[in-house]
Amino acid sequence: MTHPLHIYNSLTGKKEQFIPINPPRVGIYVCGPTVYSDSHLGHARPNITFDVLIRYLRSLKYDVTYVRNITDVGHLENEDLGEGEDRIAKKARQEKIDPMAVVKKYTDSFHQNMKLLNVVEPDIEPRASEHIKEQIELIKRIDEKGYAYNSNNSIYFDVPKYNDNYDYGILSGRNLDDIRTNTRDLKGQSEKHHSADFALWKRAEAKHIMRWPSPWGEGFPGWHLECSAMGAKYLGKQFDIHGGGMDLKFPHHECEIAQSTAANNKPPVKYWMHNNMITINGQKMARSLNNFIKLDDMFSGDHKLLQQGNRHTHQ
Amino acid sequence: MTHPLHIYNSLTGKKEQFIPINPPRVGIYVCGPTVYSDSHLGHARPNITFDVLIRYLRSLKYDVTYVRNITDVGHLENEDLGEGEDRIAKKARQEKIDPMAVVKKYTDSFHQNMKLLNVVEPDIEPRASEHIKEQIELIKRIDEKGYAYNSNNSIYFDVPKYNDNYDYGILSGRNLDDIRTNTRDLKGQSEKHHSADFALWKRAEAKHIMRWPSPWGEGFPGWHLECSAMGAKYLGKQFDIHGGGMDLKFPHHECEIAQSTAANNKPPVKYWMHNNMITINGQKMARSLNNFIKLDDMFSGDHKLLQQGNRHTHQ
Repeated sequence: MTHPLHIYNSLTGKKEQFIPINPPRVGIYVCGPTVYSDSHLGHARPNITFDVLIRYLRSLKYDVTYVRNITDVGHLENEDLGEGEDRIAKKARQEKIDPMAVVKKYTDSFHQNMKLLNVVEPDIEPRASEHIKEQIELIKRIDEKGYAYNSNNSIYFDVPKYNDNYDYGILSGRNLDDIRTNTRDLKGQSEKHHSADFALWKRAEAKHIMRWPSPWGEGFPGWHLECSAMGAKYLGKQFDIHGGGMDLKFPHHECEIAQSTAANNKPPVKYWMHNNMITINGQKMARSLNNFIKLDDMFSGDHKLLQQGNRHTHQ
Repeated sequence: MTHPLHIYNSLTGKKEQFIPINPPRVGIYVCGPTVYSDSHLGHARPNITFDVLIRYLRSLKYDVTYVRNITDVGHLENEDLGEGEDRIAKKARQEKIDPMAVVKKYTDSFHQNMKLLNVVEPDIEPRASEHIKEQIELIKRIDEKGYAYNSNNSIYFDVPKYNDNYDYGILSGRNLDDIRTNTRDLKGQSEKHHSADFALWKRAEAKHIMRWPSPWGEGFPGWHLECSAMGAKYLGKQFDIHGGGMDLKFPHHECEIAQSTAANNKPPVKYWMHNNMITINGQKMARSLNNFIKLDDMFSGDHKLLQQGNRHTHQ
């Protein structure tokens, strides 16, 4: 190759020459949406960023396998605190439809939006609810290695113990002492031994609709777990590139690294890549800040901040 | 209602007035595709048939919940004989890609085809692999009622025993003696006590990729099971309408009735509706007969039997 590719690796904070683990194959995993609402411009960004990367890798004749997941279970409202209602279940309750109808509705609208953006589609698009088995097996492996504990039939990842042998914070630069100080002490966390610990498996309360049997009783997987389990399943225990938005760096990706490293005793990913956030009037575009432009509105031009639509006709 | 709706009910062989179980709600389940190849005209037919029915029911102000499944596991090549390779796993082996990449590819092309046909989309589109838990629970219930047996860690439905208490053949009009006589005796069937028995759960051989843990060891669900499990989950243990192609009447729908009735001691469906087959030069259009017109070719007009395409532009 006359022009070697260089990638800014979030893991090392350096621009590095890209050398795949098993050339010409390249495995890339990008975090996909939690399908409980319409996609906005912020959701377009990672898909456009990694579209460019993947097309370029393929133009260099790499044999790319692109995996992007659909989160259809387990993503709680206040994920950092490990509490709150499952986002999909909440939407289902509000719209008075089945959670799986919510999943169908917003998976379809996400796909439709991505098609209009004309970004490359993933080769494999695994869903969290399809991989409960793999997630339970991963928890068992983490537990066998001694990095998990059971608290009222929820299973938590033991961050301090992991940090004794590995480096929790290797990606985000955070350290355990800071986390302890900065995390609010809420009653939902009393099951944890340390405020940095996170759920691998949550016990399902009686009212919880989406639930599966497990060795620890009925429950559902923690949000961070699916990406570790599905990345390893489709790309191997070590693969080349993991992408996602900057906002996923901590805790989501930090926890992914911890889970996979604890289970396999080796880091899961060689190059971590993070796209920056879309801002609007200087603020991050986010559903919670109510400052977002839906992709549907971008295509139609219906949003008040837009001068014209960007709809294009498909044949 | 001034004009009551009448439906030809395959179960009774009569045209009957349609009276929903819980008006104004109507639950309808239609068997969807096994996603291992491009859709052809034969696949369009049920979706157009039930499109008309659902639109009409909605125009009558019924509150319709429409469920159509995606079969992404467990549909064997020689389903009637309960043997052969999983269709999706075989395609994955042939194309040298992951089974889940096969699922992604042909689910997308099916959706694209249905969009071009402009048929109503299901409200819920459950996948077999997402509902392993529900299928295992259903097997347990059938087993508790005494209608299942374990043979080398595969679980079979005991048709003669069921037939002692219920009517196996109620939908298709077949009777057990005919089935025994007409079924070829092949080695794959030696695990069965009776040739009409069918697999609820198949033990996974070492080479089998798609497999899940169960109380009976690693395996995968039988094809008939998913529709019983997912129909009950989303529409209740008794719902209004079950649709599908005529070719699914036996054994698929007959087995669905047997499974659900054995588990719940009541018939699962009030009205069974079957669309007829598309024929071409007098023969059923089928992949295996190599006489099919793919929907893509119908839209483009590229098939030699077509005078012109039927592509229409979406905005």
